Amino acid sequence: MSSTSIFDELESQVRSYCRNWPATFTTASGSSMHAEDGRSYLDFFAGAGALNYGHNHPVLLEALIEYLRSGGIVHSLDMHTATKREFLRTFRDRILAPRDLDYKVMFPGPTGTNTVESALKLARKVTGRQHILSFTNAFHGMTLGALSVTGNSMKRNGAGLPLTNSSKIPYDDYFSGATEDFLWLERVLSDSGSGVDKPAAIIVESVQGEGGLSAARPEWMRALSELCRAHEILLIVDDVQAGCGRTGDFFSFEEAGITPDIVCLSKSISGFGLPMALTLIRPELDQFAPGEHNGTFRGHNPAFVTGTAALNHFWSDDTFVGQVKERGDELHDGLSRIANGYEGAVVKGRGFLTGIKFPDTSAASRIAAASYQRGLLVETSGPEDEVLKTMPALTITSDELRSGVDIIEAAATEVLGAPVAGLAAAK
Amino acid sequence: MSSTSIFDELESQVRSYCRNWPATFTTASGSSMHAEDGRSYLDFFAGAGALNYGHNHPVLLEALIEYLRSGGIVHSLDMHTATKREFLRTFRDRILAPRDLDYKVMFPGPTGTNTVESALKLARKVTGRQHILSFTNAFHGMTLGALSVTGNSMKRNGAGLPLTNSSKIPYDDYFSGATEDFLWLERVLSDSGSGVDKPAAIIVESVQGEGGLSAARPEWMRALSELCRAHEILLIVDDVQAGCGRTGDFFSFEEAGITPDIVCLSKSISGFGLPMALTLIRPELDQFAPGEHNGTFRGHNPAFVTGTAALNHFWSDDTFVGQVKERGDELHDGLSRIANGYEGAVVKGRGFLTGIKFPDTSAASRIAAASYQRGLLVETSGPEDEVLKTMPALTITSDELRSGVDIIEAAATEVLGAPVAGLAAAK
Amino acid sequence: MSSTSIFDELESQVRSYCRNWPATFTTASGSSMHAEDGRSYLDFFAGAGALNYGHNHPVLLEALIEYLRSGGIVHSLDMHTATKREFLRTFRDRILAPRDLDYKVMFPGPTGTNTVESALKLARKVTGRQHILSFTNAFHGMTLGALSVTGNSMKRNGAGLPLTNSSKIPYDDYFSGATEDFLWLERVLSDSGSGVDKPAAIIVESVQGEGGLSAARPEWMRALSELCRAHEILLIVDDVQAGCGRTGDFFSFEEAGITPDIVCLSKSISGFGLPMALTLIRPELDQFAPGEHNGTFRGHNPAFVTGTAALNHFWSDDTFVGQVKERGDELHDGLSRIANGYEGAVVKGRGFLTGIKFPDTSAASRIAAASYQRGLLVETSGPEDEVLKTMPALTITSDELRSGVDIIEAAATEVLGAPVAGLAAAK
Amino acid sequence: MSSTSIFDELESQVRSYCRNWPATFTTASGSSMHAEDGRSYLDFFAGAGALNYGHNHPVLLEALIEYLRSGGIVHSLDMHTATKREFLRTFRDRILAPRDLDYKVMFPGPTGTNTVESALKLARKVTGRQHILSFTNAFHGMTLGALSVTGNSMKRNGAGLPLTNSSKIPYDDYFSGATEDFLWLERVLSDSGSGVDKPAAIIVESVQGEGGLSAARPEWMRALSELCRAHEILLIVDDVQAGCGRTGDFFSFEEAGITPDIVCLSKSISGFGLPMALTLIRPELDQFAPGEHNGTFRGHNPAFVTGTAALNHFWSDDTFVGQVKERGDELHDGLSRIANGYEGAVVKGRGFLTGIKFPDTSAASRIAAASYQRGLLVETSGPEDEVLKTMPALTITSDELRSGVDIIEAAATEVLGAPVAGLAAAK
Repeated sequence: MSSTSIFDELESQVRSYCRNWPATFTTASGSSMHAEDGRSYLDFFAGAGALNYGHNHPVLLEALIEYLRSGGIVHSLDMHTATKREFLRTFRDRILAPRDLDYKVMFPGPTGTNTVESALKLARKVTGRQHILSFTNAFHGMTLGALSVTGNSMKRNGAGLPLTNSSKIPYDDYFSGATEDFLWLERVLSDSGSGVDKPAAIIVESVQGEGGLSAARPEWMRALSELCRAHEILLIVDDVQAGCGRTGDFFSFEEAGITPDIVCLSKSISGFGLPMALTLIRPELDQFAPGEHNGTFRGHNPAFVTGTAALNHFWSDDTFVGQVKERGDELHDGLSRIANGYEGAVVKGRGFLTGIKFPDTSAASRIAAASYQRGLLVETSGPEDEVLKTMPALTITSDELRSGVDIIEAAATEVLGAPVAGLAAAK
Repeated sequence: MSSTSIFDELESQVRSYCRNWPATFTTASGSSMHAEDGRSYLDFFAGAGALNYGHNHPVLLEALIEYLRSGGIVHSLDMHTATKREFLRTFRDRILAPRDLDYKVMFPGPTGTNTVESALKLARKVTGRQHILSFTNAFHGMTLGALSVTGNSMKRNGAGLPLTNSSKIPYDDYFSGATEDFLWLERVLSDSGSGVDKPAAIIVESVQGEGGLSAARPEWMRALSELCRAHEILLIVDDVQAGCGRTGDFFSFEEAGITPDIVCLSKSISGFGLPMALTLIRPELDQFAPGEHNGTFRGHNPAFVTGTAALNHFWSDDTFVGQVKERGDELHDGLSRIANGYEGAVVKGRGFLTGIKFPDTSAASRIAAASYQRGLLVETSGPEDEVLKTMPALTITSDELRSGVDIIEAAATEVLGAPVAGLAAAK
Repeated sequence: MSSTSIFDELESQVRSYCRNWPATFTTASGSSMHAEDGRSYLDFFAGAGALNYGHNHPVLLEALIEYLRSGGIVHSLDMHTATKREFLRTFRDRILAPRDLDYKVMFPGPTGTNTVESALKLARKVTGRQHILSFTNAFHGMTLGALSVTGNSMKRNGAGLPLTNSSKIPYDDYFSGATEDFLWLERVLSDSGSGVDKPAAIIVESVQGEGGLSAARPEWMRALSELCRAHEILLIVDDVQAGCGRTGDFFSFEEAGITPDIVCLSKSISGFGLPMALTLIRPELDQFAPGEHNGTFRGHNPAFVTGTAALNHFWSDDTFVGQVKERGDELHDGLSRIANGYEGAVVKGRGFLTGIKFPDTSAASRIAAASYQRGLLVETSGPEDEVLKTMPALTITSDELRSGVDIIEAAATEVLGAPVAGLAAAK
Repeated sequence: MSSTSIFDELESQVRSYCRNWPATFTTASGSSMHAEDGRSYLDFFAGAGALNYGHNHPVLLEALIEYLRSGGIVHSLDMHTATKREFLRTFRDRILAPRDLDYKVMFPGPTGTNTVESALKLARKVTGRQHILSFTNAFHGMTLGALSVTGNSMKRNGAGLPLTNSSKIPYDDYFSGATEDFLWLERVLSDSGSGVDKPAAIIVESVQGEGGLSAARPEWMRALSELCRAHEILLIVDDVQAGCGRTGDFFSFEEAGITPDIVCLSKSISGFGLPMALTLIRPELDQFAPGEHNGTFRGHNPAFVTGTAALNHFWSDDTFVGQVKERGDELHDGLSRIANGYEGAVVKGRGFLTGIKFPDTSAASRIAAASYQRGLLVETSGPEDEVLKTMPALTITSDELRSGVDIIEAAATEVLGAPVAGLAAAK
């Protein structure tokens, strides 16, 4: 295809999404993406969670264009800017204060792996311990520190080094109910001969966005939090993918009622797909020396502008949260209807980070491909890509949602055959 | 100061530039930054090298606003977009092809540390070796892999971990001429008992932007390149700060006439201060599997738009290079005039990445502070901040340049006393 | 005490056994040790397992003196000596051949930690993998590699380094029956997203001599062996303490009927308390290059002489094994009688590596101290020293055994009060 | 050869010395080793330095046999024994006190690698730093910690792991005089941006026994010691091979007049080829907790007995030292005479740890092989085995010494042709 030849000619083999979705995209709006060949696609992917408010939301777009038009400063490292001040105030007033959170805000560089690296460094520095515990099937990023706490073996192999200073512990329901929660963790922490060195921190995702959409139960998150407190271990919640409203609340851990020691935010924090990340830190842990962690793109003012606009527009009252929960139920119902038609298929995840796991591990990839043919962008998740992962914009309409679910249903029928009636009752 | 209180209240102690330059900035244009209190500052800092074409260059700004107005897609991960295609074509036509370079282009995540991490991972994967050699006073980034090859001890301590799988080797003139080039490196590589494990790669900056503005001589770079070739070690040039025209040519290594195996670019590759990075890879080394390194913000289309505009505007012919060299000479002359007035002061660096090292290690910081009072943003560099580092936009005018140099001269006089006449001849 | 003053004056604080047993010993014979002050002690410690045949067994002693008298070579590195040949032949004929084992024999340096280090190095070299799995409460030695697979946190802290390239897995019954065997291990090995890198090897002790005398069940050992085979992971049995007859059979794993890939032997392999170690290797894994692992004291001929004599004297037929099992039952019965008198006390271990775990974690240390006052050397084991560990010479007589058990009983009564009748039935 | 078939059949391929010296040895005395086939060999190898007083020295042998005959305890871990007390007293009176040394004595396990591991662990624990500097072509042992500070790449590869937490620095004259002493070390220690983390310790051999017999000059050792003191870095001297009189004095560092912080001794400390090692520690560094480093064979009483006898016999006055120096001169003269006959050949090393380096790197191995044919055991050293290494017993007679040198001379003539007259003057 001539239109993609420059990619074949020049771009590294490491590229991946374009292999499944080979269209060349040009414009986008809300939950629609438009390709050069005239086709449009409904977006159940939302920039892997970076587009929680959809593409080019007009309120954010206007704020950004106005800012640029005004000659506003674009790049400022960690100097003070009026834009950054406005973002910080808004973040405090819309997000932190209403939730009684007194975090310090660190700008660690504009990506998820930057915030994770800053969190791991800080936890080690503050505690004087080196070990980090992370969970089976966790995904935290691709730089060396973040990769060490990531589960996926293909990605780990990319390091070309043994990944050290971290051990893995079982995520909620890793044994499908066969064993008690935290049996292993409690046992090793209280046994001075366990050989599992007391960790600086445990890092956790409330929903494992890349690791197969397992969602931790609120009571499990609470027990984890208490365990950390009892053993003086820091709890880091990586809310890069599950945060910013993705699970219904602004933070994914609100449902559990816990307060992590450190929180990692990125993806949708700018609200517009612009690179930005935050590390939230309990005040007494704010112990980096000036410049001890830094990075060139910490002061990306266009992201402050759109981030402020997004916080003001969506998080001033409960309207948006209510709407997201409503829409989330619709999505869940739609996916359940599909899953109920196939033996062994189960709905995974929480809120707008949800999907279907099929017993045939190749099913999700084939359904995603068939969905793409029908004009829907939907990806897979899990170590074997065994989960069809839906992650629409939180601003999607009921009609769009229904339309996307219908496409998935048709694709599933194409791939797996017609659904079987009556399975639902049996489940 | 009430206007900055939210920073004190909410922002992490890790912030640093704002401590020396406490103004709150609002707008910026070319080499001028404007603060809320009505003061303007001449910018000899240029976003730490992310603003090689100055703030808000009108050609880039218009292209960006037009793109946003048109509904252009903002965030696309590594899907194909028309914008990305245009960027790749332009990069090929304006940069790679004229220089006979056949690199593959990888988008590794939008920051300098992302491209460095991708380069280190790739070098290890491709060679099957783990060790990396890096140079004294190198700076490559703040995530764990990049930090391991960085020299600064304060920044290294932030890791909270021993940094492993890397050794340090002396940069050009590390011994002030007291010993032959590459004596140590050649010796250990050819001695199977040296205990320095054969490295996957050597990573080098042509000019050490953070490490004190040491600039490697072209013949040293050539010898390094030949040494790498002879021992089948990959040569990675980290051109994050020194690339994109900063030293006069597009790549800092052009002067030496070498072709590195892997090149890291970021900072000014978007031309507008927008986060973006590239990893350039010799085709035979392009061996990552699809998705083996990834990241959410690899498809930041506004950066593709401004990057394309910048390449077209500045790199279509030799005009800009010629102008940069001319202006670079003026800067160098100005700095030399100042340095010549102070015993032991020397001019360091190359092109627009240049400065003055004073024998009194506190002088540079004090001169920078006095310059700020006079309306000039200029920072320091080096392990003890002993170098006054000037890094103006490449688009700065002669008048602005002269004006900035005059401020430094006045600040130096304030801090160190009047210059001594006649020292120049003695030097 | 004047007799020990040179120890206080000159010896490092790291010394430990002498703190609990401060007598100065002079001679020893069988299960008796004699101190300078005229007191004798019954030895339920046996050199931490290095004296399975007791002190100064006359057959071994005579062989050694005769050898020395004859001018026999003492130290030979890994040159051929007639003595080494004799040892190898005897080891083949008495130990390997009757058990259908075709191991290659490596002399890795004369201590337990040397053989463990050689085994770990070989496993990594042969498989090309770096990770090693070891068990909770394992003890494998004090050099850096062996310490990395050891559980005890006090000993691990001595490294002064994060210990890397190893993860811990739960030993048999680590959860007191609360969960299924190998649930964790099977799950992580079959899950490519588990984040537990596929290991080169799993290293295990059949009985955890230092870790609290947990003994793995034969069926657990078999399942472990099968799991390793299924996943192409090497199985290393560290038989340094539990081998050489300590559990009844020559190798501790014979009861389970498995054949490990690598076996570590030391302690009693010389039979006389002389430093010596062996690494047994499945022939296809014998892939070290000549000299790739070495050490000065690999050719300790006095140890070959006594080792040969011991193998010939004790392992030519089944008499010794039968006797050890008989005596082992007596020991077990005696300990059970004591344990049955105290609520919550349980007998741990197997064969002549057995003891009593008391619910009060300080009980064992106090009973050991009271036993010492009564003339019995008996130590403790476990992360909190919570197990009274009996490890008599295998050659101990019934009378000595009874006498030692009686002392423990009296010491327990002193420390914990009179035993409670009727508890046994309730257990 | 039928006599060695069990070695071929059963022993691991890792064996090495027996490949060059395939005789099967039976008895030995002084500097003579006797093989089964009736041949005798003159020993210029001395158990790689473990037999400084020759084989089966009668004074030591008698003391050992008498001890064994008396029923003396053989194995005692770190309990007090009368024998250990006697050893400590003698070591204090004969070695430490006369040299005004107030070291604490640690028994770290009976081999060189054990003492090195204990020294590295202690240095890290005491300083709280992790990094260790070691020298090019150093050899410190084969367990993971000691291997990390060893230079030889073949041996390092045996680890199957990247070796971490150590950097290499150039040994004395590593650049053949091309650069100033300690240029690199002083520079990196005083440069906070060097990227060479401040080390816990520097570990050094006064003569590199395995690394090619480079001998550090006394002034270099002094400068190293001062550098360590100035930077508060611990200095560890690994005197495993060069200690116990090998270079003339008891400690190899006496010539330089320095006092290391930690000293590693093994090999000839028992005097009889019996496994034993000591770690000597400045009192204020004696900070291991009881049992924080341990090992089964720390209380090897036969080695205490022979060690005590050796210290009393050889080190009660200066006679032995004088005789060693005299004999050392003879050896040096003999080797010089040979070296002078061959272009580019140079004498290396010091005292009884000396040899000839030939420009043709295969020469030494061929001369060693030809010497073996003539009845002399002499090995090679260096990363390419390029040095013929002579290490006779310190008790060798003048006649034996001459005889051995004559054999080497004849072997050299056979291998390299007749010596060239008149070269000496030119050197």
